[in-house]
Amino acid sequence: MMTDSRREFSIIQQYFAGLITTTSPAILLGPGDDCGIFSVPAGQEVCISTDTLTAGVHFPLDAAPAVVAQRALVANLSDLSAMGACPLTCTLALTLDPQSSTDVWLAPFADHLRELIDAYAIPLIGGNLSSGPLSLTFTVLGTVPAGRALRRDGAQVGDDVYITGHLGNAAGGLAQLQGGGSRSPVLLDRYQQPTPRLTTGMALLGMATGAIDISDGLLADLGHVAERSDVGIEVALEQLPLSGALLENFDLGRCREFALAGGDDYELAFTAGVAQRPSVAAVASATQVEITRIGRVFEGDGVRVVAADGQIVPVARHGYAHF
Amino acid sequence: MMTDSRREFSIIQQYFAGLITTTSPAILLGPGDDCGIFSVPAGQEVCISTDTLTAGVHFPLDAAPAVVAQRALVANLSDLSAMGACPLTCTLALTLDPQSSTDVWLAPFADHLRELIDAYAIPLIGGNLSSGPLSLTFTVLGTVPAGRALRRDGAQVGDDVYITGHLGNAAGGLAQLQGGGSRSPVLLDRYQQPTPRLTTGMALLGMATGAIDISDGLLADLGHVAERSDVGIEVALEQLPLSGALLENFDLGRCREFALAGGDDYELAFTAGVAQRPSVAAVASATQVEITRIGRVFEGDGVRVVAADGQIVPVARHGYAHF
Repeated sequence: MMTDSRREFSIIQQYFAGLITTTSPAILLGPGDDCGIFSVPAGQEVCISTDTLTAGVHFPLDAAPAVVAQRALVANLSDLSAMGACPLTCTLALTLDPQSSTDVWLAPFADHLRELIDAYAIPLIGGNLSSGPLSLTFTVLGTVPAGRALRRDGAQVGDDVYITGHLGNAAGGLAQLQGGGSRSPVLLDRYQQPTPRLTTGMALLGMATGAIDISDGLLADLGHVAERSDVGIEVALEQLPLSGALLENFDLGRCREFALAGGDDYELAFTAGVAQRPSVAAVASATQVEITRIGRVFEGDGVRVVAADGQIVPVARHGYAHF
Repeated sequence: MMTDSRREFSIIQQYFAGLITTTSPAILLGPGDDCGIFSVPAGQEVCISTDTLTAGVHFPLDAAPAVVAQRALVANLSDLSAMGACPLTCTLALTLDPQSSTDVWLAPFADHLRELIDAYAIPLIGGNLSSGPLSLTFTVLGTVPAGRALRRDGAQVGDDVYITGHLGNAAGGLAQLQGGGSRSPVLLDRYQQPTPRLTTGMALLGMATGAIDISDGLLADLGHVAERSDVGIEVALEQLPLSGALLENFDLGRCREFALAGGDDYELAFTAGVAQRPSVAAVASATQVEITRIGRVFEGDGVRVVAADGQIVPVARHGYAHF
């Protein structure tokens, strides 16, 4: 917990003081002790997820600190959204290269992190600051009513398969960043400033049978639902929700490749019984997020993509390999 | 949560399968979903702490993987002990250098981690495996009866100050490792295979007024208690508990320097009212840990060291600077 040298303490005081206020009644003790302490409301369970982003691996060494903060925290918040969990608190273990310009990096990082923490109501309860190659590990915690979490293993044969928002935008944005040609603000934003679908996830409690967030690519991530639920999942190629921005910048084949295998969209894929169609439409309306029905759950295994004529479409890539 | 490439999945399956069983009734969902899920017993609060160890900074690149596992997990468990918390669960974010010999490193690491998880009853509820410079971030969670946690801010003027075990052993072991001369197994063990004082911490609930674990050095760590409690702390130089092994290997001055400023002992320092002396003795006996009274809390600020004649001893070093 915020280990204790004077140098570290002064950095924490200077940059993180605004982050470490206890703004939630669940936070009983914030940073500055051996542990933070939080309470959990009766009838709730706690969802927890952790993710590391390392400079030079998950983001360029010269990435804007605000982008790093957002991508790192959202990757974790998205995991909470996929359980239907409400953000409770988080910790940050931050490793900074002492050779680099710590002040220039930390000021915009901490500023943006403060905005995110406020926006998503997930106060920082503790952390660790150490020196080494630049990397960040957020651990996020959220609450969910007991027994109600959206899990990967709940998809039922006959269920519909849905996706929030648009697919492939983040991959399109990344391709433009790496390609050096024209750049679409919509696509870049989805890659650099992704948003988690927390409100939608919570609204789906009691409605969705299974859920996952799209971090590695639709096919890879639906593959986990299929495997854990012991079912097969069929995706209709022509129902993939592609944004106007994506279609304006890439040909249709590339767009579909991004949508099927591109990571980092942080949209929610979920399954729900056919009887839930009106309820799902109501969630889309209430949470102001497009929700598109893209497929169905069948008795079998794996994920297959089908064209409008019912033919299975061969697909090569299966998402981004983290390791 | 255990991000999702096939390579990563196969590593997790191969090495961590034994770690990710849900052996506690509080663990409702282990790794393999977007989040792990746990429950918290009624009347309990949750303590949380996180710490990163990076190769080349916090341990040598060629450190034995079992030693790395132990030092990383114990650094965190020690934070739980300092709150009087009972281990509940943990996550591990592990970054491995893909250029190095992953298999040779992971097998002994995972084997020893499994032993630790069993020994301390802290099942792994999730994690993240990614590639990059070798580092580990554990986040540990423990439970404590509501409102009863041992905090740094509770020391009262007139309290006694105590320490568990011996001080300076880890620093002596590290000095021997770095010095290349003779090596004492007792000292090396405390550095390489530290143990957290979990049982003692829990036994001190309702008895100690303030507590901290010694990770940065006695003076530095007592300084945090003094500051947070708005009191001064006086340490009696001649009451520092020095082990026979330390005294056999270093002259008395060096031993005391290690005891006052050496880190990594992971002993507990705590304060308690004078009326609690028999109860503290009973805890020492019941938990089979030496507990030594080393000082007192006075109205004032800072930490001072006094000799037997009451003179203040000038002290230069103030613990290991992490950053």
